[in-house]
Amino acid sequence: MHGEMKPPAPWFQVRFENLDREAQCNEGETIFHSARRAGVRIVGACGGRGVCGTCIVRIAAGEVDVRTPQSGGAAAPFADASRTKEWVRACLVRPSSDCVVEIAPRSIAPVVRAEVGGQEVAITHDPVVRGHDVVLTPTSMGSGGQGQGGGADADRVIGALRDEGAARIDLYALRELPGLLRGSGWRLQALVRGDEVIGVRPSGTRRLGLAVDLGTTNCAGFLVDIETGARIASLGIENPQAAYGADVVSRVNHAIRSPAASRELQHAAVTAVAGLARDLCDAVAAPTAEIVEVAVCGNTAMHHLLLGLPVSQLGRAPFVPAMCEAIDIKARDLGLATAPGAYVHLLPNIGGYVGGDHVAALLATENRWTKTTTIVMDIGTNTEISLILGDSITTVSCPSGPALEGGHIEAGMRAAEGAIERVRVENGRLEIQVIGKDAEPVGLCGSGVLDALAAMVELGLVNRHGRIGTGHAAIRADGDHREVMLAPGVAFTQHDVRAVQLAKAAIRAGIDCLLREAGLGEDAIERMVIAGAFGAYIGLASAVRIGLLPALPLERIEQVGNAAGVGVRMALASAALRNRARRLAGRCRYLELGSLPDFQRIFMRRIGFE
Amino acid sequence: MHGEMKPPAPWFQVRFENLDREAQCNEGETIFHSARRAGVRIVGACGGRGVCGTCIVRIAAGEVDVRTPQSGGAAAPFADASRTKEWVRACLVRPSSDCVVEIAPRSIAPVVRAEVGGQEVAITHDPVVRGHDVVLTPTSMGSGGQGQGGGADADRVIGALRDEGAARIDLYALRELPGLLRGSGWRLQALVRGDEVIGVRPSGTRRLGLAVDLGTTNCAGFLVDIETGARIASLGIENPQAAYGADVVSRVNHAIRSPAASRELQHAAVTAVAGLARDLCDAVAAPTAEIVEVAVCGNTAMHHLLLGLPVSQLGRAPFVPAMCEAIDIKARDLGLATAPGAYVHLLPNIGGYVGGDHVAALLATENRWTKTTTIVMDIGTNTEISLILGDSITTVSCPSGPALEGGHIEAGMRAAEGAIERVRVENGRLEIQVIGKDAEPVGLCGSGVLDALAAMVELGLVNRHGRIGTGHAAIRADGDHREVMLAPGVAFTQHDVRAVQLAKAAIRAGIDCLLREAGLGEDAIERMVIAGAFGAYIGLASAVRIGLLPALPLERIEQVGNAAGVGVRMALASAALRNRARRLAGRCRYLELGSLPDFQRIFMRRIGFE
Repeated sequence: MHGEMKPPAPWFQVRFENLDREAQCNEGETIFHSARRAGVRIVGACGGRGVCGTCIVRIAAGEVDVRTPQSGGAAAPFADASRTKEWVRACLVRPSSDCVVEIAPRSIAPVVRAEVGGQEVAITHDPVVRGHDVVLTPTSMGSGGQGQGGGADADRVIGALRDEGAARIDLYALRELPGLLRGSGWRLQALVRGDEVIGVRPSGTRRLGLAVDLGTTNCAGFLVDIETGARIASLGIENPQAAYGADVVSRVNHAIRSPAASRELQHAAVTAVAGLARDLCDAVAAPTAEIVEVAVCGNTAMHHLLLGLPVSQLGRAPFVPAMCEAIDIKARDLGLATAPGAYVHLLPNIGGYVGGDHVAALLATENRWTKTTTIVMDIGTNTEISLILGDSITTVSCPSGPALEGGHIEAGMRAAEGAIERVRVENGRLEIQVIGKDAEPVGLCGSGVLDALAAMVELGLVNRHGRIGTGHAAIRADGDHREVMLAPGVAFTQHDVRAVQLAKAAIRAGIDCLLREAGLGEDAIERMVIAGAFGAYIGLASAVRIGLLPALPLERIEQVGNAAGVGVRMALASAALRNRARRLAGRCRYLELGSLPDFQRIFMRRIGFE
Repeated sequence: MHGEMKPPAPWFQVRFENLDREAQCNEGETIFHSARRAGVRIVGACGGRGVCGTCIVRIAAGEVDVRTPQSGGAAAPFADASRTKEWVRACLVRPSSDCVVEIAPRSIAPVVRAEVGGQEVAITHDPVVRGHDVVLTPTSMGSGGQGQGGGADADRVIGALRDEGAARIDLYALRELPGLLRGSGWRLQALVRGDEVIGVRPSGTRRLGLAVDLGTTNCAGFLVDIETGARIASLGIENPQAAYGADVVSRVNHAIRSPAASRELQHAAVTAVAGLARDLCDAVAAPTAEIVEVAVCGNTAMHHLLLGLPVSQLGRAPFVPAMCEAIDIKARDLGLATAPGAYVHLLPNIGGYVGGDHVAALLATENRWTKTTTIVMDIGTNTEISLILGDSITTVSCPSGPALEGGHIEAGMRAAEGAIERVRVENGRLEIQVIGKDAEPVGLCGSGVLDALAAMVELGLVNRHGRIGTGHAAIRADGDHREVMLAPGVAFTQHDVRAVQLAKAAIRAGIDCLLREAGLGEDAIERMVIAGAFGAYIGLASAVRIGLLPALPLERIEQVGNAAGVGVRMALASAALRNRARRLAGRCRYLELGSLPDFQRIFMRRIGFE
């Protein structure tokens, strides 16, 4: 990795003063997008489309252009210093010089102390890295060199930790040892991992662990006290790789283009992990050097891109990963700032399109499905589905795209103030529920997407083929272009319907194929575990109504939230849980849907509405 | 290590065209010195004093100043392109712009295929890194993801190597694997070290090992075919650290000055190893990526400076090393270009001033002294002496300085053409022998230094206190300054006599203290093994005459050449020999001469001549 990783010139340096972070903003790029690409944790519910008004900033220095929807896209120069005191939407501001930006407090994504999704699991706690206090007698004349090993700093520290299994020391830890010993009264805390001393630090220094669920769209980070297992803080950010494509396939295609493009994507993935590390540590006033172990799960493409592995063989049939087994690497080999010799553990992958995030979800939910015929599905930009039948697990991957999460949907936005989160039919009319007290509806979040479509089907606004009809007050037709108005300015277009149809058909066809391979009918499913932040919020009745899920009794379906996030925290917590994850991955048989001769037929059968 | 390592500006870029190397030449610095600092293998017998005429270059482009001794130090600008076709001494040329330099073929230090010192030792050969050919069936649709591990590239390679002990793969090796497999017809050579696959490459690629004796003044490199044990090439270069001080103490003091100074010294040490790797590989037309393992020995300061370890605790009593135990680190953690996951093994140190080079010398000579009362000494800028008595080894370190090797001696130079290598007394006159047929004497190399002083003592030109007298044709006295003319222009000065007196007294006092500690007289020494390139060439009679060595029967004294170089090659050859080196180091008891209350008295007793 000798190349420089810079975006193509020209670009402007943007300093986000109250977060103490910098980003390089390409010419023509908005401040919002440069912040997202750099992993700066700015809120932006609509993803930068200029509609939600959540990404508020103030320009403290520098020159910028502002394009508001009202100004019809014409640039309004904004160089007058007196005007720069105004708060503006970051997604409408393009720098024309280096600038200093202040993010409004309410637009800084909060570091929270509650679980994403609210789910708690009892985690057996037995950390891979242990801290041991070592006290040495000061060296004096004569004691220094009395025989080999008797006097040298590292040999004495390792000798004192022999019973803890230590036999060697990391080079970077060794570099810190002599100064630390002499500066701390010959007392220190040694970090022991297996037979290696991976760090030395003043006694009493906290030992933090970082667990990261590196999703295609969203990344969740959890900071844990590795000694007590206590969760200290958690944070969700957008994957900065989003700048290179919304889904896995487009990112893999970008990475294949050139070694430089591949490095850009690796850099973005590392930026996500480093940004989570930094923001979470900042929130608890800890330096990132207190992080002694990192665990990461992600789909196979995220895993490969983070490690800088080639993905060309992953991007074409038969979609072979470079590696499936779990791997431990030095954090410094990725350029991450942690304790000097700390490792990053990556959970094992199952196949080219089912990665460690699904293994983590299985790990986190295992106690819910043992000895039952279960489907575990993690709905996301890619949806992984496992059918568990006794000891066997069969897994498929469905390219469901970002539509179900509100991505690439005309009015799509995050679950933030102004988002329509529920849609019902009442008295033959569409009734909406908006997040935020008395908030005006400005867009549609994931749960609202499913509800809206289900309501449109129920009212007959779309036919069984998914075509929006005519003759209803909510329908606006302009030649061939048709859309359903959910609220003033918030439309559900024909294109949106098609996107959801493709997504739900892909997922449902995946379930069909799994059941057919096992010779089972839908009713054999005793339990259906729906993981993923999005899956936690969908209306199950709507999901069944549009055919995303089979028509099971609702009590068999369980929405468990971000199970991958829980699973990666479990892997952080102990070697035993890592081994359990390995065994789970080893039990999975990956079924490549594309290799089934009649997959296309099954998919087409699920594309309509009944 | 985030800092940049650049010499202070301003500097000029000097390109050594026929070696395909570049160096940064500080303003006022000669081309010779910049080449030495950058590890460019230019010959320079006199060390850049402008007297030996061995460092010949031609300026192909750029502007330079030339100062010849004849021009009395006045700069003779040399910018006329027609004049630059002349051959000049690199030590007299100072760039005044970036330049391109051609080194005369005879001034390029040769890469030789014969041993330094000519000594051969049978080395038990059992390489730490093994190469195994792996052939996989190509992945096809369906095979790629059938279950975890079944289809992923690395899992299949590791699976095929399970019987060879492989269980994991280095990240950098993993990055190369998918492309290599698909580009090489699914056949490759895997490098296995312990349980780790450290590299993958096309089948049939050579596996080279590099052994380096990192001396304070001179560095010797040996390129070995790690499979057969055959030595392929060897090369000696000057340690580029010489630019920061001639001896260990001055370099340690420089390193302590600031983190940047410390990085300069590390960079210079890495440059030495990298330069040896590159020049040796170039000589056999191999890329350095063919190097699969590196072994390095050096004194404790060289060990620490190469690893970037702090040396302040090493520079003051009680001289405590950061580490004595042998250590294996990734070559990339030092910035060395080798096979992607290759390791550098450093031999164990014994104490603050006795390092892995002495352990290597003990390892290489062990078969010569087992079961005899033996002294093993490695004469160098620092001289290490071990007294072996049954199973016990007691070791001291003597700061002998560079004088015995011709360093810091007025007319000192390397053993090259024009060097006086022998001096005898014949008919009451000094008779000299010069290296090179009919060569004019221009200086004095190490063996000549001892001989000259012994002859001066014999002739009574110096008295028992070391004072040069008067009244002999060879003596030139100018007030207080006195010197003995060995040949026209080659003088042995009073200052030189003092330097040799300090060196020989330090070494002899070390022997005295070892014998006294053991309660032995000199005659109890059954064998005296003199290691080191310098020790190989000294006249034993002269060494005894001036009191450097005790007056033993000469048949008990054996000159074995660069034993450390042989020892580090042994450590490269097998894990068993590394363990033997560890056990030898463990047997050594280090005796700090400075801690003996009467050392000064013993030293003073040995400073004169008898």
